[in-house]
Parts: sequence; structure tokens; C-alpha cells
Amino acid sequence: MSAGDDGGDEDRVRQFTEFRKRMNERILAEPNQVVRRFFALDTQTYQPGALDLKTKELLGLVASLVLRCDDCISYHVAQCQDAGVNRDEMFEAFSVGLVVGGSIVIPHLRRAVDFLDQLEAGAARSPRAHDHA
Amino acid sequence: MSAGDDGGDEDRVRQFTEFRKRMNERILAEPNQVVRRFFALDTQTYQPGALDLKTKELLGLVASLVLRCDDCISYHVAQCQDAGVNRDEMFEAFSVGLVVGGSIVIPHLRRAVDFLDQLEAGAARSPRAHDHA
Amino acid sequence: MSAGDDGGDEDRVRQFTEFRKRMNERILAEPNQVVRRFFALDTQTYQPGALDLKTKELLGLVASLVLRCDDCISYHVAQCQDAGVNRDEMFEAFSVGLVVGGSIVIPHLRRAVDFLDQLEAGAARSPRAHDHA
Amino acid sequence: MSAGDDGGDEDRVRQFTEFRKRMNERILAEPNQVVRRFFALDTQTYQPGALDLKTKELLGLVASLVLRCDDCISYHVAQCQDAGVNRDEMFEAFSVGLVVGGSIVIPHLRRAVDFLDQLEAGAARSPRAHDHA
Amino acid sequence: MSAGDDGGDEDRVRQFTEFRKRMNERILAEPNQVVRRFFALDTQTYQPGALDLKTKELLGLVASLVLRCDDCISYHVAQCQDAGVNRDEMFEAFSVGLVVGGSIVIPHLRRAVDFLDQLEAGAARSPRAHDHA
Amino acid sequence: MSAGDDGGDEDRVRQFTEFRKRMNERILAEPNQVVRRFFALDTQTYQPGALDLKTKELLGLVASLVLRCDDCISYHVAQCQDAGVNRDEMFEAFSVGLVVGGSIVIPHLRRAVDFLDQLEAGAARSPRAHDHA
Repeated sequence: MSAGDDGGDEDRVRQFTEFRKRMNERILAEPNQVVRRFFALDTQTYQPGALDLKTKELLGLVASLVLRCDDCISYHVAQCQDAGVNRDEMFEAFSVGLVVGGSIVIPHLRRAVDFLDQLEAGAARSPRAHDHA
Repeated sequence: MSAGDDGGDEDRVRQFTEFRKRMNERILAEPNQVVRRFFALDTQTYQPGALDLKTKELLGLVASLVLRCDDCISYHVAQCQDAGVNRDEMFEAFSVGLVVGGSIVIPHLRRAVDFLDQLEAGAARSPRAHDHA
Repeated sequence: MSAGDDGGDEDRVRQFTEFRKRMNERILAEPNQVVRRFFALDTQTYQPGALDLKTKELLGLVASLVLRCDDCISYHVAQCQDAGVNRDEMFEAFSVGLVVGGSIVIPHLRRAVDFLDQLEAGAARSPRAHDHA
Repeated sequence: MSAGDDGGDEDRVRQFTEFRKRMNERILAEPNQVVRRFFALDTQTYQPGALDLKTKELLGLVASLVLRCDDCISYHVAQCQDAGVNRDEMFEAFSVGLVVGGSIVIPHLRRAVDFLDQLEAGAARSPRAHDHA
Repeated sequence: MSAGDDGGDEDRVRQFTEFRKRMNERILAEPNQVVRRFFALDTQTYQPGALDLKTKELLGLVASLVLRCDDCISYHVAQCQDAGVNRDEMFEAFSVGLVVGGSIVIPHLRRAVDFLDQLEAGAARSPRAHDHA
Repeated sequence: MSAGDDGGDEDRVRQFTEFRKRMNERILAEPNQVVRRFFALDTQTYQPGALDLKTKELLGLVASLVLRCDDCISYHVAQCQDAGVNRDEMFEAFSVGLVVGGSIVIPHLRRAVDFLDQLEAGAARSPRAHDHA
């Protein structure tokens, strides 16, 4: 539960990215081919194809919302923003996730909006490395 | 588990629609305002706004896939088709649901494709009534 | 997906009860003590204590709704009815499950209401054996 | 995972409430009608009606337990306490959530009991603002 | 809900296998590389490696139980039997799934035992084609 | 969300164990027989029987992964290590959980690997008390 860790939030986006990057590298260094192929497939999933990048990232965002995974939600919020999703579109995606997934989604929505606010506040500053989920 | 009920499939789309319609009417006739408002809100959720109808139905489809609800998947497959989603786009949405949700989604994917095939086979024939999920 | 099997519904309550009874007996005949103890604990859970029977069955119903298990929902709808829960109270419990669990609950709600209707129609006729979930 | 953050717990209830309040205000200030209506509906859901407030909050608590959302559990534990649910009744509700949801609920139960202990310890001191989930 | 379809069960294993085979072929014929790679990866996952086939199929079975997917459970029950898992071992795996996943697993356990009984009854007769989940 | 709390990790294993131990004692001191029996049953579930300890702990680990509970995953990673599961076997179990559960499992996999690394780093130092989930 991260509801209370709203102190020192300026670092939250950076810490989140660094931990993800470090652990992804560690996992991909393991000699397990299934895990590595899964990570490669995960990256391939969001490549533009019949659907464009923006639509696919929105799909990833709503899937993450209804499955209630904070890290996945944060990741796709950032990816959506990079793909040009504006705030109104983001909230419409949130609304679909909220109605399909129910009030149990609300705490994750609060953290998603908090993360989005931080991204928007720091948008000019932080180039991001993008990896899995 | 409906894996085996592939006999008499020509009726499955119709039966599914009729049961949904009959029970929705029954539920909305009850004097429970929260339930009725939820149904109204569910309808409002997919109205075009910042995102267009097609994108919103795709969001509903992927949310239903990862939450693994056959009825919801069938409903949104039909809605997506009505909104102009073609087969390649549908499969890209399926691929996002499959990778996010994992192999546990596969049985639902099989039934989704079976339902899509039936919709395409009967596309010229069956006007549908569209209601909740 | 049972959305379409609304023909021959008069038998559905009976078949459901018979299959459950037969398989419970078969499972409890196995020499697996953990499974048997779990079934005993499941029965004990709904005994009246600090909370009365009616409240506990309502708790079981809403838990089953948000976890979206049709058999468990049917079972607790029947148990609630036996415990004196009236139709308005049942729908208020449904409304909590619907709002917490979201629109993904709707197909299960339709089948729950269908099952409740059948129970009310046949209320004077069918003594039930009550076992696990 | 908050298993370890048991230092400085006296502030946890307060931080939790403040973050929730701040983000709810931020979310409701957005021009997204579906999200705002959902929040209004969530509030309406727990109003006394055919079932009393205490029963409805217990339903919300058990739904939150089996869906394993720490914030939702904390919220409903606090609401239940305000509605007059005593410790024995709370544990009976916990027991239903535990048996229906399984051992995967145990870590959430530990945090629920920790939160309840803190509420009881600080009961005379902290008036709370109550909002969504 | 298939609780009641215990008539004509002798065909259930066959119908289940045929529908799965037919739809898998249909899905793999689609020009969607992510979906096809996922299916290939799913097959690779259960190849013997550091863990033997029997252990991996048991892992797949318990994962399917706690996620409550009847088709996946049936598939892994059959695969476990082929890999030499005996009835007592199968029930110990069931017991882990039941305790971790809770009473909400019970209806799926009933169908799993029913499926296992049918497999054992027809063991000498039916060669199976094995595919995904 | 603990993605960012990678500072001071040397204490994380200890804090996790202490909080679990303290709260388990508190819960078992309550006069609720269902809860206490559930905890006893949870312990009994992993005793060696038809399946050996190592297999049963691997089953608990994969069940925890696909249900995405960080505390349960950490607990079973530690138990698996105690039961003699080596790193390659652990990653094969992870791969089953990842493929069955999908990319939504990835953030939990990152934390599982981080926890495993800490366990291996401190293996010679810390005797553990083992309790529920």
C-alpha cells in the first residue's frame, strides 16, 4: 500500500524507473529462455501494426487498471503520454477501467492520477528508458 | 465451460442476445436505484468523447479478455465489429489481452474467435439489440 | 457460458444441486485430510456467531459476486433465501457486489437473478440439501 | 508491499486519509462525468436501505478482502468501526473473507488487523473524513 | 456454469479436445505473429528442463486451479495423468490450490474431479492430441 | 507499490519476517476458531505426503505468482530455497507463473528476483521463523 508515501514524490518516477531497469537487466541475464522470450514478446506486443501505438498503449493501460497492478499502470500512463495521449483521453481510458473493474479500482486510480501529475510536472526534465510493463 | 457446445452454434449468438435482453429488462424493472444507475453509467461509458467509439469498444474488449468473462468478451466483439473494427485489428487487441493476461486467457480467446466467426458468417442477417456488457 | 441455456430451466436448480451433492460425496470419500478439513471449515464458517446466519450468508453472496463464480453465487442466493433474506435485501447485496466488482459482474448478476426467479417460482416444491459453496 | 513499514505507524492512518482526500478532490475536479458519477454512485451504495449501514459496510469489507485491496480493506474497517461493528464481528467477517478467498488473503488480513489495532489505539483522537473506497 | 451437464459425459472429454484442436488451428492460421509466438512459448514452457515434466504439469494445474479456469484445469489434469501423476498426488495438488485459492475454488474442484473420473474410466480408449492450455 | 524501496534492502527480509511473525501471533490470539483452524490447515497443506516438500513449495510459489501477492511470493521463495530448490529450478517455476499469468506478473517477478538475491546474499546469516504465507 503506497497511499501514504506522498512525501518525496519528486523521486518516485525516477526510483520506479531505476528499479525496473536494474531488475529487468538482472532477469534477462538469467539463462531461462522462456522468460527472455516472454519479455521480447511483451515488447513486440505494443509495436504499431493494424492498430497504432497510441491505441495499443491505451489497451495496455486499461488492462493494467482492471487487473489492478500499480507498476503496470504507471508504466502505461508514461507510455501513453509519450504516444501523445492527452489528459482528457487518459481520463476516458480511466473511466472505462473504473466502470469495468469497479470501485476496487479507485485506490489504483488515485495513484495513477498522482503519477500522471508528477509526469506532467517533470515532463521537460526526465528522459526515460522504456522496458517491460 | 462451453468448450464442447459447438453443436447448434448458429443459434448461440441469438440465444445469447435474447437471454441478455430479457434479464436486463427484468433487472431494470427492480426498484433498486444503484443497480439502475450503474447500468445507465455503463452505457454512458462507451459514448464517443475524447476517444472515439471504436477505441472505447476495443478498451472494453481487452478489459473483458484479461478479466476472462466470456459474455463480456462476446458483447464487445460484437460491438467492435459494429464500430468498424476489422479482423486484423481485432486480433491485435486479442494479442494485447493474451500477453497481459497470460495463457489462462487462451480458452476465452478460442471462444472469442468462435463467436467472431459466427458473427461474420451471419453478418448480413441479424440486427442486434445492444445493451449492457 | 450459460447465457443461452434458458430452455429447460425448471430442471436447472435440481441438476445443480444433484451434481454438487454427488461430487461433494465423491471428494469427501478421498483420503486427503486437507481437502476434507477445508470442507468442514467451509461449513463452520457460516454458522451463526457474533454475526447472525443471514448476515454471514449475505457476506458469502457478495464475496462470490465480486469473485464471479456462478455456482457459488447460486448457492449463496439459495442460502440467503432460506435465511430469510427478501428480494429487496438481495438486490441491495447485488448492488454492493456490482459497484465494488464493476460491469464485469453484470453477466453473473443476470444469471443470479434468473436463478433467484426460479427459486421463487419453485419455492413451495423443492427441499434442498445444503453443502459446500 | 507494506509488510515492513511498521515503523512510524502512528502516522499511517492519517497519511492514508490525507492522500485519499487530496486525490479524490483532484479526480472529482476533472471534467469527466463518468468518473464523477461513479464516485457518487459509490457513495450512494452504502446508504442504509433494505439493509442497514452496518451490514452494508461489512459487505464492502468482505468484498475488499477477497479482492485483496489493502486501501479498500482499511477504508471499510474504519467505516465498520464507525458503524458499530465490534472486534468479534469484525473477525467473523475476516473469517468469511479468509475462507472464501484462501490463504492468499492472509497478508492482507495481517495488515487489516494492524490497521484495526491502530484505529482502536487512536479512537478517541482522530475525527476522519470519509470518502470513496 | 456446467455443474448440471453431467448427462452424456462420456462425450465431454472428446468434445473438449475437438473444440480446442479446431480453434487452436484456426487461431494459428491467423497472420498475427504475437499470438502465434505466445502459443509456441506456451508449449515450450512445459518442456522438461531443470524441473521435470511431471512437476511442471503440476505447477500448471495448480496455477489453473487458483485462477479458476475449467478448461485449463481439465487440460492440465489430463497432462498430469499422462506424465504419471497418480490420484493421491493429484489430490495433494488440488489441496494446495484449494487452500491458496479458497472455497471459491470448490466448484472448479468438483468439475476437475469429475473430469479426472472420466479420464480414468476411459483411459484405455482415447489417444489425445495435446495442445495449448 | 514497492518498486522504489531498493534503499536499505538489507533490512527488508528481516522486517518482512518480523511483521509477519508479530501479526500472526496477534491473529492467533483472537478467539476466532475459523481463522485459527485456517492457519493450522495452511501449515498442514505443505507437509510432505504423496508429493514431497520441494514440489509442494513450488506449487505454493507458482500459485502466489499468478495471484500476484508479493508477500506470499517472498514467503514461498524463502521456503523453496530452504527445501533445496536451486536458482535454475526457481526460474523455471517463475517461467510457468509468468506464461500462465501474463505480463501483469512481471512487476512481481522483479520483486521476487530481488528478494531471492537478498536471500542468497544473506543465506549464511539469517535463521528464519516460518509461518503462514
